[in-house]
Parts: sequence; structure tokens; C-alpha cells
Amino acid sequence: MATIKQAPNPEDNPRVKAVFDDIRATRKTDFVNNLWRTLAFDPALLESTWAEVKALMATPTHLDPLTKELVYIAVSIANSCSYCVHSHTAAARAKGMTEAQHAELLAIVSLAAKTNHLVTGLQVPLDPVFDAGASS
Amino acid sequence: MATIKQAPNPEDNPRVKAVFDDIRATRKTDFVNNLWRTLAFDPALLESTWAEVKALMATPTHLDPLTKELVYIAVSIANSCSYCVHSHTAAARAKGMTEAQHAELLAIVSLAAKTNHLVTGLQVPLDPVFDAGASS
Amino acid sequence: MATIKQAPNPEDNPRVKAVFDDIRATRKTDFVNNLWRTLAFDPALLESTWAEVKALMATPTHLDPLTKELVYIAVSIANSCSYCVHSHTAAARAKGMTEAQHAELLAIVSLAAKTNHLVTGLQVPLDPVFDAGASS
Amino acid sequence: MATIKQAPNPEDNPRVKAVFDDIRATRKTDFVNNLWRTLAFDPALLESTWAEVKALMATPTHLDPLTKELVYIAVSIANSCSYCVHSHTAAARAKGMTEAQHAELLAIVSLAAKTNHLVTGLQVPLDPVFDAGASS
Amino acid sequence: MATIKQAPNPEDNPRVKAVFDDIRATRKTDFVNNLWRTLAFDPALLESTWAEVKALMATPTHLDPLTKELVYIAVSIANSCSYCVHSHTAAARAKGMTEAQHAELLAIVSLAAKTNHLVTGLQVPLDPVFDAGASS
Amino acid sequence: MATIKQAPNPEDNPRVKAVFDDIRATRKTDFVNNLWRTLAFDPALLESTWAEVKALMATPTHLDPLTKELVYIAVSIANSCSYCVHSHTAAARAKGMTEAQHAELLAIVSLAAKTNHLVTGLQVPLDPVFDAGASS
Repeated sequence: MATIKQAPNPEDNPRVKAVFDDIRATRKTDFVNNLWRTLAFDPALLESTWAEVKALMATPTHLDPLTKELVYIAVSIANSCSYCVHSHTAAARAKGMTEAQHAELLAIVSLAAKTNHLVTGLQVPLDPVFDAGASS
Repeated sequence: MATIKQAPNPEDNPRVKAVFDDIRATRKTDFVNNLWRTLAFDPALLESTWAEVKALMATPTHLDPLTKELVYIAVSIANSCSYCVHSHTAAARAKGMTEAQHAELLAIVSLAAKTNHLVTGLQVPLDPVFDAGASS
Repeated sequence: MATIKQAPNPEDNPRVKAVFDDIRATRKTDFVNNLWRTLAFDPALLESTWAEVKALMATPTHLDPLTKELVYIAVSIANSCSYCVHSHTAAARAKGMTEAQHAELLAIVSLAAKTNHLVTGLQVPLDPVFDAGASS
Repeated sequence: MATIKQAPNPEDNPRVKAVFDDIRATRKTDFVNNLWRTLAFDPALLESTWAEVKALMATPTHLDPLTKELVYIAVSIANSCSYCVHSHTAAARAKGMTEAQHAELLAIVSLAAKTNHLVTGLQVPLDPVFDAGASS
Repeated sequence: MATIKQAPNPEDNPRVKAVFDDIRATRKTDFVNNLWRTLAFDPALLESTWAEVKALMATPTHLDPLTKELVYIAVSIANSCSYCVHSHTAAARAKGMTEAQHAELLAIVSLAAKTNHLVTGLQVPLDPVFDAGASS
Repeated sequence: MATIKQAPNPEDNPRVKAVFDDIRATRKTDFVNNLWRTLAFDPALLESTWAEVKALMATPTHLDPLTKELVYIAVSIANSCSYCVHSHTAAARAKGMTEAQHAELLAIVSLAAKTNHLVTGLQVPLDPVFDAGASS
């Protein structure tokens, strides 16, 4: 089930090998998951996608690593990306997500979806106080 | 822009008044935003929605209050709920979200959307190691 | 707020006039709403869209008229189409939707969204009994 | 394909057993489908989700049981929840949905999606008459 | 994994046979894919869906055949329709899409998704110059 | 209606000024639209977003400039991003999109949405021939 056939030896391409090596070094594991193996069909797209993911998700920033994964899972659920839900749930577990936090994440995501649909059905008018762009 | 006309004096209904009073007490403010004012057309729906939001978002749980708001914003963006994005961004600010954290949240949400669409376009096959339901 | 400028006198075009006349006759009203006025920029698209809406929504079929509008509202909410939510909520009211039914519709739509997100977050495996295509 | 491993004997937990017993009694069947078996990992989430589904979908309310399932299917399609489409299509059949009604439901859902996207592409301005919140 | 069981010999129905024959003649192949085989359960829905797809996608129009498939893939990705992504990627290849064009399509679709989410998170106000409906 | 207040003189920041200058030079216009003016609150996010948009949309690549805008509009419609639909429709017009092509784009986007929902409602099984990842 893929629209691109994975090359049997993607690392024969030195640009692909360089990205895979960096993924292994950054994540401290030999495992390179299928997203990167599939993206290897286009080295430029592979390089730019990994660079962006690494800079935001594998580098210390303003939000802690687990919070970032929880946000990533939330978006992936709302966008119905099955692979992404699986891979980022695994990543969140690796960063310390407990079962109770997982359950709570799912409760918040599904509550947000519920009120999103409720608000869209009601077409609730914006309270002026919420408009940061309003002149004051 | 609404599909329901707000009642001019919703708190004439004691069930509505009880919910509004609890919103004000819980949030320590006199302000009751339009979601609740619109939901007042059906007291049962108002009560159950507020009870669920209060239990999850206004009560100490396994995730900290700001993380919960960030997740809520992420889902609201992915579901294109304009009102919800506004109201939960305001809530996140009230709970301490800095401008740098806001920018990073938006960067992660939009990166997740990018890789969600990339994965769906590629139809990346699931790595067996990500399947928690697999027999081992 | 439109990507197409409405023509000032769209019915100068006889194909547009024929569709508008049919809309007025079918709905027994002089009012032609903005969807049709905007679509008038391309008479062929206007004709095919109206023909399809009329055949399904304004003709007796296997589902009753109100049920059809409720389904239409539900999809429009999930697809975040503000105009569509407004116009089909008005249509449902015209076909007899009570305020209690409206509240219940919104409760079901938002509950469905909640469990949709829960199921996608859990990646619940399909029960074999639900697969109509399974060989038996 | 799941992000949570189902426990082998979930009913060893009395809270889980109580919910499963209520599902079997309410639906008059021994079958408990995978949504509930997966949710069993968090008894509180299992209890609250079942309570909400039971109150709305398995209790007489303002809309008839089949109409409620049709709305549920519609939302599940628009949210791309494969499992939900399967389980609620099965539920609708159990509540009497004929093949002709099923075909018509799919025709309406897909027509709504078509006009949703058309309206969003055109950015059709709201007719003032559709705004229930307008002052009159 | 289907909500409708495919009939073993759908072409025993002359209406279904006529559509399948037209699909084979139009596409110059003996292959009739599962969408049409599944839709065969309702000949009227099969006929109207094929007529619409044929008129737009298999007939010379204002946009070239490959561009039309690229747009179709883009929408199918954004709507998370796995089958549609697969079938229209195959169709685009048959119409000459190169591997470099495929990679670029995916890059644009995912960039659009990224800025869509960024804009929705920022709730960027519309520049008046973009409003085609504005009076001038 | 924004979640971020635009700075009155964003170009006082030299990083913002450099990006705005590049936007004006690349597009050969003095006009800098609100997306960039809003993103100016975070210069790093502004820089990376513009760099990506410029590289893909304002540089000769494998797909022609108009095709790229049509794909961008298609995704923006499916993701319900009103601002994005407006801005990229304006961009497509600037790159030569005719009214007939615009109508056809909308017809294809809405037909794709229709069959996306039909396929998801039917849960059509994948034809093995569409699976590029299958071993042969």
C-alpha cells in the first residue's frame, strides 16, 4: 500500500545515506522508519523534510519535547493520518508519555473535536475581546 | 453570523444561570463568552458541554493547563474552527503562553500538517514496530 | 468576500434565467440565494449543480426531506463550510426542524466527531463482522 | 494496527466488566466491538464515552434511531474515520436501513461534499436572511 | 474492507454492463477498478457518477489531462481518501507524470497544507484587494 | 479577526525588512499581503516560510507556474482556508488563469470531493494494481 516503490538499497545514493546517517545519529538508533525510506525516491525532498523535522522536533526549543509530540499527534489525528498517529504515538512514548497522559491526550483531542463541530454548527459569533487584531 | 439567535436574557432560565454562575466562579471573571451564550438555547446541551470542558480543562489532571490548551488549539486549527482558534489562543495566553511559544506551536502544527499530507500522498506503509496491537 | 464578482444582472443570460426561474418555481419563493447568484458566472456549472441538488433534495426519494437536510448539515459542519451550514439550517427549519431536533442534531454531530477522533487516535482495528466485503 | 494493545482479559477489571455488561444488555447481543475493547485501557474514558453514546444513540429522543445513525455515518465519512463508517453502517442496517436508503445517503453525503467545496472555492457571501443572529 | 459486498457477476445487470463497457471503451483497457465494481450495487448512482467523471476527466476541456489529475490527487490527499490517492496517482502516471513532477506535486500539496494551518492559526485578515466581490 | 496583532512598523526590524524587500523584488510589486505582515511577529518563522514558498512557487521547476497555483487552491479549498483560497485565486489570475479554467478547476475540486466521500462511505478495497509498493 504505497504510491511509490521503495528502492531496495536507498543508501547507494550518497545524499540518502547522509540523511539516514543523521537520522540514526540524532535518534541514537539503527532504525530508520518507512517515511524516510519512502521519501528517499527524491533526495531533495528527503533532505528538506528531515532538516525541518530535526530542527523543530529533535532540538531543544521553547516547548518541551513531550509537549511537541502531543501537539503533533493531535494534528495527525485531526488530519486522519494513520501512519503519523502511529509513529508520533511511538515517539511520545519514547519521550516518556505515560498511559494516563495518553488517555488524557485522547480525551482532550476528542473534546476539542466535539466543541469544534458544535461551534461550527452554531456559527458562534466572535467575541470582540478575542480579536488580537482589533484596534484598542 | 449565527444559526441560533441568542436570547436577550438567557439567565432568566435558572439552569442557564447556574451554568453561567459556575463559569464565572471557575474562571474568576464576569465574562461569559459567546459559545455559552449561544448554547443557552438548549440548557441540557449547555450543561453537559460545560461539565465536560470544566472537568478536563479547568481541573488539575495529568497534563499541565498550558499543554492542554496547546493541544486544543492544534485540533481547532486542523478542524478549521475560527472561533475555537481565537478563544483557545486567548485561554493559552491567560495561562502563560509566551509569544515565542505561540510561534513554535504554529510551526509545529503547520509542520505536522505538512508531513501528514506528505505521508497521505505517499501512502507510507506502517512499520510493524509502531503497531502496539501486534502480537509479540 | 468572494473570489468571483456577481454579475449585476445575471438573468440577462437566458440559461441563467431558466435556472433561476426553476429555483423559484421549485421552492415556491422569489428568493434566489447567493450560491446560485455566484455560480451564474458559469452557466454550465450552474445548470449541472442545480440539476443535481434538485433531483436529490427537492424531489421525493427514499429518505424524507427533513432527514436529507439533517445529513446535509452534518456533512457541511464536518467540512467547515460556514455558508452551507447557514443555508441548510435555514432549509431544515423550513422543512419543520424543531429547536429540540436542532439541538439533538448538533449533539449527535459533535458526539460523532468526538468518537471519530478517539477512534483515529486509538487506531481501533476493524471487527471482521463489520466487513461487508468479506467472503463468507 | 492500533496504538494501544488490548488487554487479553479486560473484564477482570470490574469497571470494564460493568460497561461491557451494559453494552450487551442495551444492545441485546453478546458482541462487544473493538472500540470498547480498546477503550478498556482507561476505565474512566470507557465509562464516559459509553454513557454519552448510550444516552444519545440507544435511548428514545427527538430524532428516530435510523436518522441518528445516518447523521453519524455522514460525519464519520467527512472525518475519514474508516472504522466509524463501518461500525455505524452496520448499526444503520440493524436499525432497518435498506440498500436504496444506503445508496441515497451516500449520494447526499457526496453531493454535500461537492457543494461544500464549490462554496468554499467561490467564497460565497452569506445571504443576510440566513443569519439567525441578525437583529431584526 | 468494504461496507457493500460486490456482486459476483455485476454485469448480469444490463445497466451495469453498459457503464462497464463504456469505461473499457473510454479508457481503452479491459480493467474496471473497484470503485465502479462497488458502485454497481446501485445502477443509478453508478451511471451518474461515471457520467460526471467521464465528462470532466476523460474529455478534452480547458485544462490539460495531467493538470486535472494533479488537482484530483491534491484534493484526495487533503480529504484523506487513501483509495482515491492510489487510483489517481496511477491515472496521473498513465497520463505522463514523471517522478520529478510527482515529487514536486507532493511538495506543493504539503507546503499548501502547512501555510493553510499557519494562516488558520494566525487568523490572517483578508486583504481587501483579494475580495473579487468588493464594489469598486 | 486575528490571533496576533500586526506591528505598526514591522520593517523597523531588519530581518523583517529583508524578507519584505525580497517579496517585493520577487513579485515585482510594492504590495506585501497580510500573511507576511502577520508572520512578522516572529522573524524566524517569517524567513523560513517565505524561503519555502519562494523556492517552490516563485522559481521555475518541473510544473508550470499556473498548474502549481491550481494545486495550491485545490488544497486550500479542501482544508477550508478562506484566506488561502482568496490569495491563491488572485495569484492564479495574475498567472493567466481564465474564467473558464477557474470554473473547471472548481468543477474538478468539487467532483473529487464528491468521489472522495463516496469512496470513503463505500470503503472501496484497493485494487492490487494500484499498489506501487507491491512486490512483483
